[in-house]
Amino acid sequence: MSDLEPVLDHLRRDFGGAVGRLCDLLRIPSVSTDPAYKADVLRAAQWMVDDLKSMGFDAGLRQTPGHPIVVAHHAGPGDATDGNVPHIMYYGHYDVQPPDPLELWETGPFEPTIVEAARGPRVIARGAVDDKGQVMTWMEAFRAWIKVHGTLPVRVTVLLEGEEECGSPSLPGFLRDNREELQADICMVSDTGSWDLETPGATYMLRGMMYAELTLHGPSRDLHSGMYGGAVLNPINALTRILGQLHDADGRIQIPGFYDDVEEPSAAELEAWKGLGFDEAAFLGEIGLKTPTGEKGRTALERLWSRPTCDINGIHGGYTGAGAKTVIAAHATAKLSCRLVPGQDPHKVFAGLKAFLDARTPADGRWEFKTFSMSRAIRVPADSPWLQAAMRGLAAVYTKKPVLIGCGGSIPVVGMIQDTLGFDSLLVGFGLEDDRVHSPNEKFDLACFRNGMLSHAAILQQLADVARRPGA
Amino acid sequence: MSDLEPVLDHLRRDFGGAVGRLCDLLRIPSVSTDPAYKADVLRAAQWMVDDLKSMGFDAGLRQTPGHPIVVAHHAGPGDATDGNVPHIMYYGHYDVQPPDPLELWETGPFEPTIVEAARGPRVIARGAVDDKGQVMTWMEAFRAWIKVHGTLPVRVTVLLEGEEECGSPSLPGFLRDNREELQADICMVSDTGSWDLETPGATYMLRGMMYAELTLHGPSRDLHSGMYGGAVLNPINALTRILGQLHDADGRIQIPGFYDDVEEPSAAELEAWKGLGFDEAAFLGEIGLKTPTGEKGRTALERLWSRPTCDINGIHGGYTGAGAKTVIAAHATAKLSCRLVPGQDPHKVFAGLKAFLDARTPADGRWEFKTFSMSRAIRVPADSPWLQAAMRGLAAVYTKKPVLIGCGGSIPVVGMIQDTLGFDSLLVGFGLEDDRVHSPNEKFDLACFRNGMLSHAAILQQLADVARRPGA
Repeated sequence: MSDLEPVLDHLRRDFGGAVGRLCDLLRIPSVSTDPAYKADVLRAAQWMVDDLKSMGFDAGLRQTPGHPIVVAHHAGPGDATDGNVPHIMYYGHYDVQPPDPLELWETGPFEPTIVEAARGPRVIARGAVDDKGQVMTWMEAFRAWIKVHGTLPVRVTVLLEGEEECGSPSLPGFLRDNREELQADICMVSDTGSWDLETPGATYMLRGMMYAELTLHGPSRDLHSGMYGGAVLNPINALTRILGQLHDADGRIQIPGFYDDVEEPSAAELEAWKGLGFDEAAFLGEIGLKTPTGEKGRTALERLWSRPTCDINGIHGGYTGAGAKTVIAAHATAKLSCRLVPGQDPHKVFAGLKAFLDARTPADGRWEFKTFSMSRAIRVPADSPWLQAAMRGLAAVYTKKPVLIGCGGSIPVVGMIQDTLGFDSLLVGFGLEDDRVHSPNEKFDLACFRNGMLSHAAILQQLADVARRPGA
Repeated sequence: MSDLEPVLDHLRRDFGGAVGRLCDLLRIPSVSTDPAYKADVLRAAQWMVDDLKSMGFDAGLRQTPGHPIVVAHHAGPGDATDGNVPHIMYYGHYDVQPPDPLELWETGPFEPTIVEAARGPRVIARGAVDDKGQVMTWMEAFRAWIKVHGTLPVRVTVLLEGEEECGSPSLPGFLRDNREELQADICMVSDTGSWDLETPGATYMLRGMMYAELTLHGPSRDLHSGMYGGAVLNPINALTRILGQLHDADGRIQIPGFYDDVEEPSAAELEAWKGLGFDEAAFLGEIGLKTPTGEKGRTALERLWSRPTCDINGIHGGYTGAGAKTVIAAHATAKLSCRLVPGQDPHKVFAGLKAFLDARTPADGRWEFKTFSMSRAIRVPADSPWLQAAMRGLAAVYTKKPVLIGCGGSIPVVGMIQDTLGFDSLLVGFGLEDDRVHSPNEKFDLACFRNGMLSHAAILQQLADVARRPGA
């Protein structure tokens, strides 16, 4: 019998205990964005510290300008200085979104309730999956390993923040200030989903972003459209004319040089995505649409995972209240973001956008720019030994083969860790599409919770076998 | 000596009295939009009634759902039933704009002050020109005619509203309910300007308007731009693409059939406009612009007076607050107005706009429309005997030849009178570009006030000679 089997046995036997501990944590309303919950946020952080200490972690609360960060270390099986033991960081967050609108909850958002559904039991509460439920999948795996073997098979650092749901304002500074202490080989993040209930997966691609606000200035003041209309620059007319040229008829983005550095997915990746059987009609139907849209000659998964975008996220100018006002506005503004894919440099894309706009500036027009996000796409190479170890761990638990998943969005912490600490992340999560994250009646299927715990136990063993990077 | 000369003499001798009466009226803060001034608005209406009665008019206050309307009748020289005496309505308003921002006034807005300027004395007060000063130009002409000749040379109906500065909500209903009583041959409106201090003018063209709000609906809810971007309809992107096609490279509006019914100005009109010496550089410079803009091959006055426009007056969609939000909005909205010229039907233009948009609706997109204004352009034919009479009256007073002026805006009451009462209006006003209408330190040059009184006295005589329309 391997080292893993008794750990899995223990997890199966103690599943009721694990659900109980998750419910204890879910009862703490750790809403980070609302100051009224400040003491509760602190209580959740302390709950995590206590639980980690009870397993033998060296754990503590670390002050930040906002809510505290929990840091905990476990030396693993050997001497802490043994260079051959892989060192894994586990990142998660103990804060949750506000429960509003309260009237749409069928049970109290902080009274976790087990409900039987067609697919089996689920726990309903704010944070059930995001991120308390996911965090407890690896916490329970740690607990079982330590219970059965007296230690973990790898060296572990836990990093739990309490501000993820309000933009992680304190995290970048904390990572910078604690670079040495927070070194590891790889970071494990459980904040994503499985492909479906039976098919586990690791997310290996995240798109980056260039987010800019652009304002076109025209006349020195708002004008009466009767007295001036037809003979002066109207900045809203001009802005629509210019932004209307961002895509050609085939959905290709017209920013100069935009596609120059785009890395195409490999034939093997494209083949694998085809095999996932993505249901585009269901994807569109859920949001009231029917017609596949976007860059010509690309499948929906390609468009979502491996192709860059240019979306206007907001536009405003002139009179926007009720009724009519016959004004020619002095200026008009758009917020615009490009989702970026591996190879693209956000600064180069922004320079291209400026060139695109400058080439179309109307006579007497003047641009003003602000930028908000500038992050590169993330891609963990499919042949990364850490990723392969995670996939083997998943394969040991599920009957269906694990898949590699792309993601159209960004998970900012992954970029922060890469930029500040210098190592990659593995995104192995157990959520499902219908978990109602950030919405009323958030839930986590207990089957997902159990498979997550078992998978993390198996992944721990696989990670222990990965040869450490030279010098890391 | 004609009938007119002693009237003009009387006006010249009594000019001090006329200025005093104007100042009395200006001291009443008849701000119609602010309920705090309700009693003052009523006081101004009563002041007008009393003054009209003192001249022998049959004058009274008429209740409306809002502020009262003053109606007064004078039978003129003959029997009131004499079909050969022309019947002229004089329209004006006794309410004024709020004086805000108060701190920018150099003297009290309701303490009329005579100030010497380079061009001569002027009276400074809210309403100095808009519209109390202009109304008193014809009131003083009436007074002088009656004083000198015991009567007016024409039959007169006076219509003074107290809600012009808040959109004339009660006027259309009042006109409908009093159609019979308010019949006349022509309406005289003094709410416009001279071409310049020395050159009098009658405004004979006003553009009409089609004002619509259009919303493009896409997904059934706001979407996360990472999870959906690149594979779904973005209504803001689509709206800019569509509205960006409203004009071609030459500034021609692309709405189907838009120019079909546009009446071109005559060669004589174009020649006359050229002779006005419009200073386009000064017109643009005052609003911070340098470059002539608009429909190719047209002069600025043509664009402003005789060419239709399509201006987006407001646009909004998605996130418009500070910072960034990565949203794909469910819908986007624009407010759009076309200034119309003689010949164009606003309903046909709206149908054309709908056809333009429908032809470009993106897959799964849906339009929603609202309309606010639907008014035809106004054009008094240059050979109208009433207009010619007014021009002859102006010529009798000024040394420079009076000119026919176009106007890019609309004066709603002109359309209401046309639609409800069935007769045209003459727009003969004495304001100047720099009168600061609706702004702090509103003024009326006393030279304009005097020339206005003298001109109205002369116009009254000219109107008396116009043969009445058969059956009117």
